[in-house]
Amino acid sequence: MSWNTFGRLFRFTTWGESHGPALGAVVDGCPPGLTIDEGLIQPFLDARRPGQSKFTTQRNEPDQVRILSGVFEGKTTGTSISLMIENTDQRSKDYSEVAKSYRPGHADYTYDAKYGFRDYRGGGRSSARETAARVAAGGVARLVIPEVSILAYVSQIGDDRIDMAKFDAEEIRRNPFFCPDADAAARWAEKVEAVRKSGSSIGAVVECVATGVPAGWGAPLYAKLDSELAAAMMSINAVKGVEIGDGFAAAALTGEENADPMYPGENGPTFSANHAGGIAGGISTGQPVVVRVAFKPTSSILTPMPTITRDGQATELFTKGRHDPCVGIRGVPVVEAMMALVLADQKLIHRGQCG
Amino acid sequence: MSWNTFGRLFRFTTWGESHGPALGAVVDGCPPGLTIDEGLIQPFLDARRPGQSKFTTQRNEPDQVRILSGVFEGKTTGTSISLMIENTDQRSKDYSEVAKSYRPGHADYTYDAKYGFRDYRGGGRSSARETAARVAAGGVARLVIPEVSILAYVSQIGDDRIDMAKFDAEEIRRNPFFCPDADAAARWAEKVEAVRKSGSSIGAVVECVATGVPAGWGAPLYAKLDSELAAAMMSINAVKGVEIGDGFAAAALTGEENADPMYPGENGPTFSANHAGGIAGGISTGQPVVVRVAFKPTSSILTPMPTITRDGQATELFTKGRHDPCVGIRGVPVVEAMMALVLADQKLIHRGQCG
Amino acid sequence: MSWNTFGRLFRFTTWGESHGPALGAVVDGCPPGLTIDEGLIQPFLDARRPGQSKFTTQRNEPDQVRILSGVFEGKTTGTSISLMIENTDQRSKDYSEVAKSYRPGHADYTYDAKYGFRDYRGGGRSSARETAARVAAGGVARLVIPEVSILAYVSQIGDDRIDMAKFDAEEIRRNPFFCPDADAAARWAEKVEAVRKSGSSIGAVVECVATGVPAGWGAPLYAKLDSELAAAMMSINAVKGVEIGDGFAAAALTGEENADPMYPGENGPTFSANHAGGIAGGISTGQPVVVRVAFKPTSSILTPMPTITRDGQATELFTKGRHDPCVGIRGVPVVEAMMALVLADQKLIHRGQCG
Amino acid sequence: MSWNTFGRLFRFTTWGESHGPALGAVVDGCPPGLTIDEGLIQPFLDARRPGQSKFTTQRNEPDQVRILSGVFEGKTTGTSISLMIENTDQRSKDYSEVAKSYRPGHADYTYDAKYGFRDYRGGGRSSARETAARVAAGGVARLVIPEVSILAYVSQIGDDRIDMAKFDAEEIRRNPFFCPDADAAARWAEKVEAVRKSGSSIGAVVECVATGVPAGWGAPLYAKLDSELAAAMMSINAVKGVEIGDGFAAAALTGEENADPMYPGENGPTFSANHAGGIAGGISTGQPVVVRVAFKPTSSILTPMPTITRDGQATELFTKGRHDPCVGIRGVPVVEAMMALVLADQKLIHRGQCG
Repeated sequence: MSWNTFGRLFRFTTWGESHGPALGAVVDGCPPGLTIDEGLIQPFLDARRPGQSKFTTQRNEPDQVRILSGVFEGKTTGTSISLMIENTDQRSKDYSEVAKSYRPGHADYTYDAKYGFRDYRGGGRSSARETAARVAAGGVARLVIPEVSILAYVSQIGDDRIDMAKFDAEEIRRNPFFCPDADAAARWAEKVEAVRKSGSSIGAVVECVATGVPAGWGAPLYAKLDSELAAAMMSINAVKGVEIGDGFAAAALTGEENADPMYPGENGPTFSANHAGGIAGGISTGQPVVVRVAFKPTSSILTPMPTITRDGQATELFTKGRHDPCVGIRGVPVVEAMMALVLADQKLIHRGQCG
Repeated sequence: MSWNTFGRLFRFTTWGESHGPALGAVVDGCPPGLTIDEGLIQPFLDARRPGQSKFTTQRNEPDQVRILSGVFEGKTTGTSISLMIENTDQRSKDYSEVAKSYRPGHADYTYDAKYGFRDYRGGGRSSARETAARVAAGGVARLVIPEVSILAYVSQIGDDRIDMAKFDAEEIRRNPFFCPDADAAARWAEKVEAVRKSGSSIGAVVECVATGVPAGWGAPLYAKLDSELAAAMMSINAVKGVEIGDGFAAAALTGEENADPMYPGENGPTFSANHAGGIAGGISTGQPVVVRVAFKPTSSILTPMPTITRDGQATELFTKGRHDPCVGIRGVPVVEAMMALVLADQKLIHRGQCG
Repeated sequence: MSWNTFGRLFRFTTWGESHGPALGAVVDGCPPGLTIDEGLIQPFLDARRPGQSKFTTQRNEPDQVRILSGVFEGKTTGTSISLMIENTDQRSKDYSEVAKSYRPGHADYTYDAKYGFRDYRGGGRSSARETAARVAAGGVARLVIPEVSILAYVSQIGDDRIDMAKFDAEEIRRNPFFCPDADAAARWAEKVEAVRKSGSSIGAVVECVATGVPAGWGAPLYAKLDSELAAAMMSINAVKGVEIGDGFAAAALTGEENADPMYPGENGPTFSANHAGGIAGGISTGQPVVVRVAFKPTSSILTPMPTITRDGQATELFTKGRHDPCVGIRGVPVVEAMMALVLADQKLIHRGQCG
Repeated sequence: MSWNTFGRLFRFTTWGESHGPALGAVVDGCPPGLTIDEGLIQPFLDARRPGQSKFTTQRNEPDQVRILSGVFEGKTTGTSISLMIENTDQRSKDYSEVAKSYRPGHADYTYDAKYGFRDYRGGGRSSARETAARVAAGGVARLVIPEVSILAYVSQIGDDRIDMAKFDAEEIRRNPFFCPDADAAARWAEKVEAVRKSGSSIGAVVECVATGVPAGWGAPLYAKLDSELAAAMMSINAVKGVEIGDGFAAAALTGEENADPMYPGENGPTFSANHAGGIAGGISTGQPVVVRVAFKPTSSILTPMPTITRDGQATELFTKGRHDPCVGIRGVPVVEAMMALVLADQKLIHRGQCG
């Protein structure tokens, strides 16, 4: 089954393939009366847009978003909002090889196994291009949660992590890696360039912090805030791991080391640590919500890999064409969008039950 | 909002608090005609049952499951199945301190922040006792997927990991840690005993492998198999991280290192590696589905921690009473249950769309 | 597929068969802090209880509801509320004939066709006994909407309708027919007695009016208030028709005749008519919400009817045992419950999106 | 809250306003491999298209549907299908009066009450123009259920009903009323013309029959086939009543009169009557599924009606512009579409649970 809708009250549904005429999202359940226009959404798409540096895919298109419904006189009306982005650079190409064989690590084989055939042009629906629709929907979600600031950045490429002591939020938009550590960015420039030149690819970790989330959001037990975030992040192409707060590192700690002591504060409690990533019992604590997301290296590499044809014969395949040497980089605006979409939904759900 | 239902076609809804009269699950959407009785579900509850060794909480109750509906003449009828487990050991206790103050790291503060008050007896709804209902529901789910074998085990306690070279599936049920490495189990016995004696707690990692999952299960894009598993696992008490396949380790790899080459096989392709954990593009590949889950150390420790009272005054609190020194251990049957519940759902969803 | 959950934010899930040990409902998404105990729910069950007059089935059981979760110190906690009613009068009986053949008009054949077999004792899951669980859930729903008053009554039995000029709300609880017209009640006593004695059955119409619903509830386009009410009512056993406001009568009117003119009022507009039944564009107008529900005569009659056996042979069957000569009568508390459940859900949904 | 998605496995989401640039539907969960192109969907839109006779609104646009995703090489891929219809005849008009005041019987007041303001141009989202998107989605749904034939027709305009003895299916597409009785069509031509000339409007009843539905579809208890159909039909603009089979007429019958006796047949049972409209216990019997839908007269009439302005002052308003004298007529393709959409969903749901 395909399942292209996410969310419970604030919901969005995406559609579109890599090489179709367009792709889009329908956002439903958005509160009425929010000031909106394309100009408020476009910057997020621009941040995700390919072709902006040599470190991302060279597919180059404007990714201009259009609002087709749900808005009147510059405000959301409370009805469904249709967002559309035309595909303009579906470069004509010979797909006969991909049509006949399965690129290992891609969704080629599994889509065939599930649906009996597939739109093989550029990965069809399984292309990361779909995330443009999420980013557009995320732009709407941000309007729902003006109290929240969301900031994502790359914290690791390959095995090279940023130094949190050098963290500078201003730096994130200054380099092509969304990297908050200028030194790491410099190292990564070399590293990713080498990867790109060799036709290889490399993994990355994206970290996302949402500040301003009030205590009380999250819907235990099966729509816990951390559970929703995990589902949201793991639905992004190439993501294979999600951590809330300390995540796997917490497994190595004792209860004393992992504690987040509370103290009286002016507006609710203050905390001297945030191992839990701002979520306890599935509900936000008022601290920053912290998520960490692991992106695998894309399977699109120039080294031929053993694989099979559609009719089961052994062959080798490598991926021609334009691809990201490090898909995690362009994952940053997508992770931010998914954070916004989950928080907008949880805000409305909380308001619905608890007034 | 509370959200106590999980699943799309094969759904379950849980209810019950730590110190209420009972807890339970209603399983809906189960196929008809499956042979079932309490005896097929009870073993999973027995595996999760507290009080079986000194390494888990000393709360001691039989956790006997009763089927109240949805079964006729030993077979599922296709209607909703009500499962109930009575609470029999809600030890009378003085909760006045917990009622007045927030145990740091627990859901005490967040439940109050969300709902305005809370059932403070034993954690109420936020107690890990709720997982008994999941394990019962998971017992039904297993009947839906007889082609699949699910095996979970503890792969790490604190910073001490098992040695995969010593992996012995038979060993898992022989020691109180669900540990497949006898040497590690021996080390953990000492380690966890020390933690227990000192009134501390420690984290753990649980790994779960499902074999026999055919290629084609998973519902992209927002019910991808890995996304559903992430949501399921992250909804378990104390879980803070989820990985599919190599997870975060994949972030450090290149595309060549992370590849899962395919070869012709008798029944579909064979693979020479499984970095992707058996899921590509959100759909199962036919390989084993591999999930890794990080449990934090429980916040219930004997060391007093700074916290605040309900009326905002500074205080210190430590947790009296019966608790698990390592909640990850008893997480094993719960992780297995959530795996079964997700796979049963995905099987039916796939059959619904793709016949 | 079975689908035993109803609602979007305020949800309930029911379980249980006519002859199982118990039946129940799990109510999820209920706001926290509402004063509740069994005594607030029991009266609605008492109103639905069988065996209270000779005009309803002689099955006689107390239908005592127990709250098993979600309540602490007399208040809803915001978590899932489990309600259970034990079956105490599953009279031992010979079901061999029903097991072998299909009672025409019943769900016997269709459950077999769908699920391959069925729990034939007393209709199993298809028994109207399930509505006890709805009535219990409806008792919780009423607590969510204290601003709303709900009143249902029988407006027609067979072809004999009440005279609205003789409408007396006080009368409804005075006669065994929930009839607001004392004269009609007197006529119906004779009519239904004759039906009962002849071993026949007869249809009825139940009307339900909710006053105090503010303008603005309803979620267009596919959760319009009238659409949700139609789904809710049509899910009740034996219901075959639903009207909002004038319903089918509106089809015979002109736009002028069907108009609901608006005038200035102190608190929002006033209206000089309510043909629309208090709903325009799927959203409540602030007028009384009016629903009319048609119950068919139960198929359980003493006249033998041609039917077939499970193995396809011709036979005749009539229904022995205890049955309602007019199931519409006991439908009154069920219709009220479904009205309450829909309105509670719509209130929370509205608050979620629109604050 | 707006809720613009319908369905459980086969789902569709619609968007768009009367006077926006376009409207559309996203169909999700469609089985893969179905032959499809715009030419298979367009005829249903053509049947619904306005401006085809003087008996429907004179708004005149081609309603050309485009498929933007989910199809590859003429087949559905199993992913989300985006359908778009451009608005081409949003005649420029003075809306200042409608902006300031509420047309009685319209959604003007309720949208304002709910959302705080509204897109008043042509009714915005509450316009019947949205049904074009449903009809397009319904075209896809029909491909999912090739075993089923769906036929709807107008059975009553005002108080004038067709004579079933004169029923001729061929006649339905021959007259502008979708009327199967040529004599009635002739009478209606005069009647509706008189209504149109006088600037009034009139109600209608649409009947819809689906043949070929196998026994076993329907998901009790809260997604019963009749419950889903009721929700689907009641979500259509101007619909105020829904009946399954005999509907309200069954209320006047005895159990003997309402019986549908069963006899042995070659492929399952045969029936000598169909009072139940092909549904028992919420599950299809294998007989034709029969639904009857009441459309009120549109509130858009030339007679001035008392109403209020947005700031609460008394005024009078009548509706200028292009409108349908009998909206029920164009409801026929919409009712057919909703029938197809419900049945496609139920087919997949059934297959999911019962294989």
